[in-house]
Amino acid sequence: MIIKLKQQSPHKQIEHLTNWLTRQKFRVHLSEGEFETILGVIGDTSALDVHAIEGLEIVEQVIRISEPFKAVNRKFHPVDSVMTAGGAQIGGGHFALIAGPCSVESYEQIMEVARAVKAAGATMLRGGAFKPRTSPYDFQGLKAEGLELLRQAKAETGLPIVSEIMNINHLDLFNDVDIIQVGARNMQNFSLLKRVGRSSSPVLLKRGNAATLDELLMAAEYILSEGNYRVILCERGIRTFADHTRNTLDLSVVPAVQHASHLPIIVDPSHGTGRREKVIPMSRAAVAVGADGLIIEVHSHPEQAMSDGNQSLDPVEFEQLMREIGQIAPVLGRSMA
Amino acid sequence: MIIKLKQQSPHKQIEHLTNWLTRQKFRVHLSEGEFETILGVIGDTSALDVHAIEGLEIVEQVIRISEPFKAVNRKFHPVDSVMTAGGAQIGGGHFALIAGPCSVESYEQIMEVARAVKAAGATMLRGGAFKPRTSPYDFQGLKAEGLELLRQAKAETGLPIVSEIMNINHLDLFNDVDIIQVGARNMQNFSLLKRVGRSSSPVLLKRGNAATLDELLMAAEYILSEGNYRVILCERGIRTFADHTRNTLDLSVVPAVQHASHLPIIVDPSHGTGRREKVIPMSRAAVAVGADGLIIEVHSHPEQAMSDGNQSLDPVEFEQLMREIGQIAPVLGRSMA
Amino acid sequence: MIIKLKQQSPHKQIEHLTNWLTRQKFRVHLSEGEFETILGVIGDTSALDVHAIEGLEIVEQVIRISEPFKAVNRKFHPVDSVMTAGGAQIGGGHFALIAGPCSVESYEQIMEVARAVKAAGATMLRGGAFKPRTSPYDFQGLKAEGLELLRQAKAETGLPIVSEIMNINHLDLFNDVDIIQVGARNMQNFSLLKRVGRSSSPVLLKRGNAATLDELLMAAEYILSEGNYRVILCERGIRTFADHTRNTLDLSVVPAVQHASHLPIIVDPSHGTGRREKVIPMSRAAVAVGADGLIIEVHSHPEQAMSDGNQSLDPVEFEQLMREIGQIAPVLGRSMA
Amino acid sequence: MIIKLKQQSPHKQIEHLTNWLTRQKFRVHLSEGEFETILGVIGDTSALDVHAIEGLEIVEQVIRISEPFKAVNRKFHPVDSVMTAGGAQIGGGHFALIAGPCSVESYEQIMEVARAVKAAGATMLRGGAFKPRTSPYDFQGLKAEGLELLRQAKAETGLPIVSEIMNINHLDLFNDVDIIQVGARNMQNFSLLKRVGRSSSPVLLKRGNAATLDELLMAAEYILSEGNYRVILCERGIRTFADHTRNTLDLSVVPAVQHASHLPIIVDPSHGTGRREKVIPMSRAAVAVGADGLIIEVHSHPEQAMSDGNQSLDPVEFEQLMREIGQIAPVLGRSMA
Repeated sequence: MIIKLKQQSPHKQIEHLTNWLTRQKFRVHLSEGEFETILGVIGDTSALDVHAIEGLEIVEQVIRISEPFKAVNRKFHPVDSVMTAGGAQIGGGHFALIAGPCSVESYEQIMEVARAVKAAGATMLRGGAFKPRTSPYDFQGLKAEGLELLRQAKAETGLPIVSEIMNINHLDLFNDVDIIQVGARNMQNFSLLKRVGRSSSPVLLKRGNAATLDELLMAAEYILSEGNYRVILCERGIRTFADHTRNTLDLSVVPAVQHASHLPIIVDPSHGTGRREKVIPMSRAAVAVGADGLIIEVHSHPEQAMSDGNQSLDPVEFEQLMREIGQIAPVLGRSMA
Repeated sequence: MIIKLKQQSPHKQIEHLTNWLTRQKFRVHLSEGEFETILGVIGDTSALDVHAIEGLEIVEQVIRISEPFKAVNRKFHPVDSVMTAGGAQIGGGHFALIAGPCSVESYEQIMEVARAVKAAGATMLRGGAFKPRTSPYDFQGLKAEGLELLRQAKAETGLPIVSEIMNINHLDLFNDVDIIQVGARNMQNFSLLKRVGRSSSPVLLKRGNAATLDELLMAAEYILSEGNYRVILCERGIRTFADHTRNTLDLSVVPAVQHASHLPIIVDPSHGTGRREKVIPMSRAAVAVGADGLIIEVHSHPEQAMSDGNQSLDPVEFEQLMREIGQIAPVLGRSMA
Repeated sequence: MIIKLKQQSPHKQIEHLTNWLTRQKFRVHLSEGEFETILGVIGDTSALDVHAIEGLEIVEQVIRISEPFKAVNRKFHPVDSVMTAGGAQIGGGHFALIAGPCSVESYEQIMEVARAVKAAGATMLRGGAFKPRTSPYDFQGLKAEGLELLRQAKAETGLPIVSEIMNINHLDLFNDVDIIQVGARNMQNFSLLKRVGRSSSPVLLKRGNAATLDELLMAAEYILSEGNYRVILCERGIRTFADHTRNTLDLSVVPAVQHASHLPIIVDPSHGTGRREKVIPMSRAAVAVGADGLIIEVHSHPEQAMSDGNQSLDPVEFEQLMREIGQIAPVLGRSMA
Repeated sequence: MIIKLKQQSPHKQIEHLTNWLTRQKFRVHLSEGEFETILGVIGDTSALDVHAIEGLEIVEQVIRISEPFKAVNRKFHPVDSVMTAGGAQIGGGHFALIAGPCSVESYEQIMEVARAVKAAGATMLRGGAFKPRTSPYDFQGLKAEGLELLRQAKAETGLPIVSEIMNINHLDLFNDVDIIQVGARNMQNFSLLKRVGRSSSPVLLKRGNAATLDELLMAAEYILSEGNYRVILCERGIRTFADHTRNTLDLSVVPAVQHASHLPIIVDPSHGTGRREKVIPMSRAAVAVGADGLIIEVHSHPEQAMSDGNQSLDPVEFEQLMREIGQIAPVLGRSMA
């Protein structure tokens, strides 16, 4: 950690800070230039509170050199973590293809989509039971009934299931849900992160739409620090000025996560673009960049699609997606199984 | 609402959509151009699900003309709402000056700050008991004990108190807290919004760092739609590429909120800039733009400020802030009391 | 075009606007709702000045339904444009691989890189002679001498050459330069766009780091509107809050451009990420998303690389890139030749 | 400057870099930690090329501690620079109120606006003769004739005049123009910056819509480094996701510029918000934050305003603006004269 001090800081205060750091077993090196003085702090600074030090009168700026995260850090865990959920594997060369409807609507609907995506090669089934909606007047999901329908679809197709949790008191409802999703809006809902961190279920943690790489990894660190190491990250688009897609899918975060962490990372091009016609090209790109999986919205009856989003593929489009990425995945050494 | 249809959409499907809208009592007007066909939908479309319509095969784009929010909308409630909390008023010309430490740390600390900000003219006391921190290893607050210390400070100084809630199960702990804050990271934690919407306490709802105006107002709508009309909005900076402040304080949202909604809006220049030396100038600007209040971080012992942020003022600086805004507030017709 | 009028606008002024539009041969449809009145304007509105209409007292908002661009619009030119430059082709299935150093430094340097990238399969050579640098104290390029060295490299290797122009008075210096690049910082330097629009050379137009899709296409329209239809677009990253790459490479703009326009679009993952280790993964992704080409920075002597950027590949890395994208390009039906 | 080296970098290469720096008279301090090695470089590093050093094999990251700018830096020039233009002063307590139409349209129009803004208290007249427009089909200004009309308005009213240059070959046309404006789109048009840097006219340099503070100051540095020290900076809004204003006016950059540089900085709330009803509140805020001036669009005949933007005030609104800021400016110690 580098601490840049203000010009003409009193020596007494500099000494006070230096001693405080030394007592905590850091090595401190002081460099005095004409216009600024720098303290280099050497040691494991991940537990130091940057904002606290920035608050000191004599400090102009604090620059972290080493990462603030530990459990998720690849430096301390160099090998790819492979997550197992309901028999499927994600990470370390295992590619997950999670597909299903935005919302679970009925037995017929979820079964039809489940069968279609399984036939096309999906490895897991997604479906929203609790839906985060910008408007309180929009459909909020079938809730517990939706989860029950997902369990039935799992029983009949064998596909492991993925669904989103929005309330820390709902964890019991997620029995037999193979992966519990924490959505982008809740990426820094620390109460929820701690709660799923005390469960033993795999967690799919989506990047918030304004989250930096460090913030995403620190959110994962919240889960791991409570004891649950089964975390899969997900890029789903960030908010920018660009208006040709609903969000800007930031594929460069995939190699960045893989460099910094051992956790797997998948991509959601459905929310990441918000536009059906961009889902297939961006899925190909996500596979090519090296993602560990995809999560794709698929609906079954586009002609009655009053409750499906602009971003969902129909089964025919989904089969095309599977064919196209099936040609690229082997180039990356990814197996879908 | 304007629905732009794709070129050469089948007449049968257009008719199907038109009939569906007409059955819901909307008037529909069809305009056919050479390169596109437009459906104008007239009526109260706030309950229509944009994404559902966008999902239709024949639809290229849906453009909302009227706002999706109702209860917070100034059109249906033209007069400024004035909120009362612990005897203090906010909105409709009443200016709130909420000040206090980032975190409550001890009885001595909170009492010292409370007395200092009261003496300087603050109308309410803030203090964090539950702290949202990016890192699980940073100090998370004194929790229930922190709230108890706030209540003591209220008893001794008479200042109404403001503190942040992070967990829907904690509402009972917030008895006698005059304003419950929902932080920026939880602006779309819909479970929490609904929960505080079922309480009768005033809620200070902070804008998420990537939230649009509509999203902020829809988050407020979640609270009002559950029955709690006592909501105060707060701008605290958005995330941009700019790196000279921690966030970019978007003061233009103040007149934008005041145009669209009857709810009061205050400004947080401490989090909004993250830099102590910018707090006073941006506070002046917030008053001048017409905000209904300010929320300011103040600490008491900068020389021991190991737990205070880079953005907190000391009591002397806070007095200076009060003097400077005290000259501008009357220009705007704002009274501090 | 949709014009949303303010509530209670005087009928006389509405009629005045309607007549003004009708005189210009637009069909106008008026829809009056309880809370707003909408004018639908049908016809070719691309020449209408949105800001002028927005300036009218009675107008609340103007919403464009049809695109403001014409010559670049795929609607009026449905077939992919194929650009030919120095014998190489770009677009319509022809994939361009443009590679070379950030700056031309010496005869030895440019020849060594040129031979290396040609051997690895590059189809064109890039090299900066005039360099846009944030600081006036940074190296600004060899200028005319740099262009001469590029011409020599072209003579010896047969590779067509690409170089950036920064000054409208320099066009004569770009004789025999096969593609003239307009950089991201100059995307809305309209004097320069018009100047290259009056030349007959192919122009590589890079997207500005805060440009929307429409602005990029309108910048191209400036060039086409002066008579030069030989324009190739380039995505090179946009500015966002994300800090794990220097820019955020927005690959979704590739299908968006291809949907809206007949012009080819290539991707620059070197500037788009600013990090060497991200160039190969993002190049794979760019090919997979369907780009018409890549432009890649390559330097030859990393051990003396005092003037090379953090983002340049060495020849061995470039060969690896060629191998990896060589396996993906055929999946997209792209030929490199 | 801090150079973070990669883990296990060969000692020979570290020594090579250290020697190279030492030969250039920098003091270098090496700190070796368990997971990273840091080089602290002490001395005037403003002329060092960050990207060049980042390109080295052994370097993971380069962090600048001192600013890359010199001539604009307040450290080397602690006193506010006061600019004089046509008799008016800007900076150091002198507040400039520059007002006028978006475009000069006719003798009658510019005279009418000039007289109105002068009567209301404006200190300078602005008017566009060369207009940067997103579309080549929009009105591009009266060009040389527009400048001539401005000169006539100056002759009759005595107001110094401000107009934008877009082409390096046009400088001769700007005789008697008191302040030459370089627009936001040209903030990094380095050819233009150097050209106006070789003139002796005051330059109003607008911040690009995606420019950081450092980039703005470095653009000014281009002008000063050519010998012209008469530069006034201008904040006119940055591009963000927020959609309630056309741009997001970043008022916090005003104190940030004033901290880092001795140059004056003014604010353009017309372009900065793009919405007429936000111009007055944001003007008040700009004065309150401490800006050295305002530049405001005013048109005279709103009822024929087919060529005026949504963001222009009429003379009555402008008078109101002058009254309101006239009450705030004295609080900041600003005099308008």
